Amino acid sequence: LLDVYVQHGKGTATGWALQSGGQSGSRLGVRGSEDLGGGLSAVFTLENGIAADTGTVTQGGVFWGRQAFLGLSSKEWGALTAGRQYSPHFFASVANDIFGTGVGGGFASFVTTTVFRVDNSVTYELPKIAGVLGGSVMQSAGEGGAAGTKATSAHLRYASGPAGLSLAYLQRNTVEKQKLLSLAGSYDFKVVKLVAGWQDVKNLTGALGAADDRREVWLQAAIPVSASGTVQLGAAQAKASGATGKDAKQWTAGYSHALSKRTNLYAIYTQVDNGTATNYTTGGATGAGPAVTAGVDATALTFGVRHSF
Amino acid sequence: LLDVYVQHGKGTATGWALQSGGQSGSRLGVRGSEDLGGGLSAVFTLENGIAADTGTVTQGGVFWGRQAFLGLSSKEWGALTAGRQYSPHFFASVANDIFGTGVGGGFASFVTTTVFRVDNSVTYELPKIAGVLGGSVMQSAGEGGAAGTKATSAHLRYASGPAGLSLAYLQRNTVEKQKLLSLAGSYDFKVVKLVAGWQDVKNLTGALGAADDRREVWLQAAIPVSASGTVQLGAAQAKASGATGKDAKQWTAGYSHALSKRTNLYAIYTQVDNGTATNYTTGGATGAGPAVTAGVDATALTFGVRHSF
Amino acid sequence: LLDVYVQHGKGTATGWALQSGGQSGSRLGVRGSEDLGGGLSAVFTLENGIAADTGTVTQGGVFWGRQAFLGLSSKEWGALTAGRQYSPHFFASVANDIFGTGVGGGFASFVTTTVFRVDNSVTYELPKIAGVLGGSVMQSAGEGGAAGTKATSAHLRYASGPAGLSLAYLQRNTVEKQKLLSLAGSYDFKVVKLVAGWQDVKNLTGALGAADDRREVWLQAAIPVSASGTVQLGAAQAKASGATGKDAKQWTAGYSHALSKRTNLYAIYTQVDNGTATNYTTGGATGAGPAVTAGVDATALTFGVRHSF
Repeated sequence: LLDVYVQHGKGTATGWALQSGGQSGSRLGVRGSEDLGGGLSAVFTLENGIAADTGTVTQGGVFWGRQAFLGLSSKEWGALTAGRQYSPHFFASVANDIFGTGVGGGFASFVTTTVFRVDNSVTYELPKIAGVLGGSVMQSAGEGGAAGTKATSAHLRYASGPAGLSLAYLQRNTVEKQKLLSLAGSYDFKVVKLVAGWQDVKNLTGALGAADDRREVWLQAAIPVSASGTVQLGAAQAKASGATGKDAKQWTAGYSHALSKRTNLYAIYTQVDNGTATNYTTGGATGAGPAVTAGVDATALTFGVRHSF
Repeated sequence: LLDVYVQHGKGTATGWALQSGGQSGSRLGVRGSEDLGGGLSAVFTLENGIAADTGTVTQGGVFWGRQAFLGLSSKEWGALTAGRQYSPHFFASVANDIFGTGVGGGFASFVTTTVFRVDNSVTYELPKIAGVLGGSVMQSAGEGGAAGTKATSAHLRYASGPAGLSLAYLQRNTVEKQKLLSLAGSYDFKVVKLVAGWQDVKNLTGALGAADDRREVWLQAAIPVSASGTVQLGAAQAKASGATGKDAKQWTAGYSHALSKRTNLYAIYTQVDNGTATNYTTGGATGAGPAVTAGVDATALTFGVRHSF
Repeated sequence: LLDVYVQHGKGTATGWALQSGGQSGSRLGVRGSEDLGGGLSAVFTLENGIAADTGTVTQGGVFWGRQAFLGLSSKEWGALTAGRQYSPHFFASVANDIFGTGVGGGFASFVTTTVFRVDNSVTYELPKIAGVLGGSVMQSAGEGGAAGTKATSAHLRYASGPAGLSLAYLQRNTVEKQKLLSLAGSYDFKVVKLVAGWQDVKNLTGALGAADDRREVWLQAAIPVSASGTVQLGAAQAKASGATGKDAKQWTAGYSHALSKRTNLYAIYTQVDNGTATNYTTGGATGAGPAVTAGVDATALTFGVRHSF
């Protein structure tokens, strides 16, 4: 998948830029499975993140930084996988974000919070229960077994017809333990799909005495306006507790137009209202928004093309 | 494509070395297109440069450093692509270089000048006009929109039967703006293909007050001597204006032998005569020539194999 | 191929960790050949080493660090290849190691010694002689022709029915020249395959006056216990000459269970007894064992899954 976009951004400065990874992070990967008989399979994924504007590797230059894992999967017993994997909390987040953690959504601007990937992790994915319940639990052994890099996450989801609901938890062994607890759901009314989410965040940065607990909420809508066009609306808010100037808001209006099942164009306008002590900007899935200093608002108008292969 | 060669080089020191990328830079890539109907396609290219002698990544370690772009292409309206791409000036240069910017040619030794790749660039390729005229224009948005990394380039070409002609321009926002204007052409007489080029260079390095304007000329010939063998001859010269000791010359004689459509052997002798203030060496497409200090001439005799896959 | 394992290690500290590359280094590659007629082929290999626990690149971050070479191969005349390649000494070592240079074997813990890969190398592989004799010779040109990075290696092997024998040599131009001379063989009795090896090492580290000559021996057995299960046993010893406290021993017991031809599970227990001046640990093919300081013994119990693709 490649996704490039032209962005007119306004932050501390104003101007045009070309970025990669608006709706989705540009990537190239290898995935496979081998049927071992008795409903058991060996499964693996390797995925490289690409900055298509400059040719560099995203995820801080970690080559297989998007995903790298191997495991065994059984229809009856679930799947056990190990490596660098998305956290269960991330799966709950992306399932309840109209923008799919891409430009316009809170997970891209960090107004809402998730932990995308966890190294050295073992994940157990539950088999589907009664056709509607699913979930997964993850434990990271830490890098070389180091306690400070360990993490734990779990996700329980309900999906039936047009309704979906996710309960997710994540904890990281940062100096003050980062803890995320979220409840989010969606309902597809056909004329509009609504998404709403709530999250309690303890120790957002994990730094000692940072006074960075907060509540996050988001509300989004996707409105099909033609066979190939969808209007996307969203609003997100982070409300700090025990600190002033750390609240932030974001609102977004966009339009996505499918040229085929694999290729679409998009135009998205999004704005982040920063508190006096925050400097969030309108990021994409991996692309950068306009730079801002604390208290300055960020806006971006993006025009992009995304192509899956 | 992989290309490795043994080189006996003489510069400041003399000796044998193994190098990668003689005639062509070793590479591995992914390319694709999707038919979107109505003559429109989504097109993309990702290409990694490889130092096959050591396993490292070329282009300064930028993984997809050869090419990384995505765009839409129409037979009727041309193509619009964005990412890290070859400049129009490069396309004009490689089309008028018997050595294909590989070992023996001036673009590999830097006796003649082009700009290979431009980050954050948007290129519009014109549809073919009257069956003989083509061209493209490129604008780079600069890294994160930064003015100092912006660049502009254009290329107009005429191709009819055995004759080809290219007019190309490139400008980069270096401290003193680098400007390249070239006119080059080729004619295939069957018994010999001749190539000649001329280029005016303003601010070669772009550094302030560097007194590095110059004129470049090159003359090359490819002589088919058998069904699978071609003799290649070339000469190039850079003549500085407003500075002494900055002139340089190169001459080359080589032989390329096709083992198949995908595999060939080559033997190329090339020599660079440096001015008292230049230290150009006989590079390959990505391979290094013998090290020289200013004023020392460089010679290289290379034996290589190139294989496309 | 991906290989991940959970390790309970005891060294200076004790604990669990997740590692990549137990029995084999995780990897992804491209290999190809083109028939050029007359028994001649163009052949190439590119192989990337993967740390599947974190997504990073192994071999010190050199992307195509496992293998990167191109050459010509003839059934009658042998093969000539150039690039970054395994040394002939390595091929002799891996052919005589039940653990395949993976976890449990001396080549993984460095109790026994080989040189895996050599940059800038040209290898000539002999055609098979009389159906039983083979071998190869390798010479590295050094990086950019630099003398200090040159190396030479050769391997002569005999293989007939259940019996195999390898004689191998390697020399590196380190400050004091590192020289390895090994004689190793195997015999497959069907109920058990036995492997024994002996090696003389001059200047193990290559450092000036390091007093690091030594003799290495190893003895291993593979016992098929079912259609899909194999018990693996091994012992290795390094005995220093001219220095005290530099002797080390390793012993291993493991079990490998095939789920298919491409996928297997394994459980391996291995222990390294360090001398007062050595700090070897129980490594895997690329995975790390528990950290130890000089004189501390290392033990590891690993449970892993390996999947070829």
